[in-house]
Amino acid sequence: MKKILIIGCGLLGSSLVKRISKKKISKKIFIYEKSRLNISKIKKLRLPGTIVKSLKDGVVNSDFIIFCTPMSEYKELILKINKFISAKTLITDIGSSKIDSSKIIKKFLKRDINWLRSHPIAGSEVSGPEHGKDNMFEDKWCVLIKDKETSLKHLKFLNSFWKKMGSKIVIMNSEKHDKIFSITSHLPHLIAYNLVKSAQDFEKILRINLIKYSAGGLRDFSRIAASNEIMWRDIFFDNKVNITKAINLFIKNLNSFKKDINKKNNKSILKKLVQTKKVRIKIIKLKQDVNKPDFGRN
Amino acid sequence: MKKILIIGCGLLGSSLVKRISKKKISKKIFIYEKSRLNISKIKKLRLPGTIVKSLKDGVVNSDFIIFCTPMSEYKELILKINKFISAKTLITDIGSSKIDSSKIIKKFLKRDINWLRSHPIAGSEVSGPEHGKDNMFEDKWCVLIKDKETSLKHLKFLNSFWKKMGSKIVIMNSEKHDKIFSITSHLPHLIAYNLVKSAQDFEKILRINLIKYSAGGLRDFSRIAASNEIMWRDIFFDNKVNITKAINLFIKNLNSFKKDINKKNNKSILKKLVQTKKVRIKIIKLKQDVNKPDFGRN
Repeated sequence: MKKILIIGCGLLGSSLVKRISKKKISKKIFIYEKSRLNISKIKKLRLPGTIVKSLKDGVVNSDFIIFCTPMSEYKELILKINKFISAKTLITDIGSSKIDSSKIIKKFLKRDINWLRSHPIAGSEVSGPEHGKDNMFEDKWCVLIKDKETSLKHLKFLNSFWKKMGSKIVIMNSEKHDKIFSITSHLPHLIAYNLVKSAQDFEKILRINLIKYSAGGLRDFSRIAASNEIMWRDIFFDNKVNITKAINLFIKNLNSFKKDINKKNNKSILKKLVQTKKVRIKIIKLKQDVNKPDFGRN
Repeated sequence: MKKILIIGCGLLGSSLVKRISKKKISKKIFIYEKSRLNISKIKKLRLPGTIVKSLKDGVVNSDFIIFCTPMSEYKELILKINKFISAKTLITDIGSSKIDSSKIIKKFLKRDINWLRSHPIAGSEVSGPEHGKDNMFEDKWCVLIKDKETSLKHLKFLNSFWKKMGSKIVIMNSEKHDKIFSITSHLPHLIAYNLVKSAQDFEKILRINLIKYSAGGLRDFSRIAASNEIMWRDIFFDNKVNITKAINLFIKNLNSFKKDINKKNNKSILKKLVQTKKVRIKIIKLKQDVNKPDFGRN
């Protein structure tokens, strides 16, 4: 590959820049970033990419473009790049939900341009290029979306690209993707935000400083609830149908737990608590988490 | 102090044994443990304590007894030790909720015996003496309960004991304790169990293997949801009034989030997501968690 353009150089964008450079995948890496703060950070960090001031300079000179911005910025960016992008250029992104954002892409992107969707399951609660690292995608899943209109040639290319990023590839359609991640990622984030919000409300109601005693559980949720708010608003809005279904089942189950607790239903509650334990063992076996008590943090 | 008896030598009991021995706090440490599996582990680990086969041997020879069993075992143990305990012996425990369990103690424990309540905010998702460590309580809060009937002399002793365990001490009454920890610990655990339970339900409904994609958030909850089921059942039952209030506020807030998402209420949702971020910063400042992205696990 000759030239790659990274649009949006935050945590994941900068990780891609580092990895692409390290593995010598392209001759040139362009970076388009609209935040002045991030631009000054990128310069200070001496990231191995060339910052382009105009989107046009980046787009006309690149064979491959990766959108690493929040999904709410896609439309505006698409309307701009439509003016100078050629059919030779392939686009992908790293957005965390696919159905609704694909509609935006389909509606606004120029007809003959190929945009295939990617979703690397990577990241953390911190944002910004200063946290990027070249092994961000190492041994992590990267979901590639294959819908009816997906070009197999380009899918093959993406597959090879993400493998070089260190990812394990899995291919599925948008519907399946959005269902899976509404449960394993979007609902957990919403629940974490909601728990921390509820703790804040209780602090006001009880007039007690609760947060200083958060090592008993709350601290774990506070990490996820510190994730980027723009990115997560976009995901919640984008995947709202699946997330709503997930919320409804969650509340139904929570009410059932409440009933068990109030009736001291020993058998029912123990069955649930024993069952959930098995998931942790599965997650460790599947190498989705570290095999250390307390994440090894103490 | 001459002799200490640890009743129940799991994760926290064994950590106490190690720390007491290391700091040479007592001349002798007795261990009473009913699980055969744990006894064989304790022997293999060569924990610096003497296993007593009968509870009587431990109790009559000890000045200080620490209950480290699940709270549901208190009653049966109290009825046994009543027969041979003397008023010189002080008792404490490490139970995570206080109002209801104090009623059991008050109702069944022989009149002239002092039992003061402790709650070290320590532990993890693993159980058993093989995971015990002498720094388990280091720089962690230990709540000491001071209610109307609490003897100040004994409170002073407990304060000094837990300081030797490495804890930071805070004193409060049962009501305040149970309110605080219903929010910072009991609700988070229940929510984690409930989220993992919901993911399991969705696996069945959708007939998709979701768990392999849990690195996007679910894995964090699965750690807490792997905690000891007997201990947590006891806590949920013991503190059910406060936990029920917490569940109700949580569901109210979650329904509000759902509404925001479905109406795409940008202003309302961003306000919430930005607010919760502040809690993480506070938690790090208060040294309640490590200051590393992703708990430093990657």
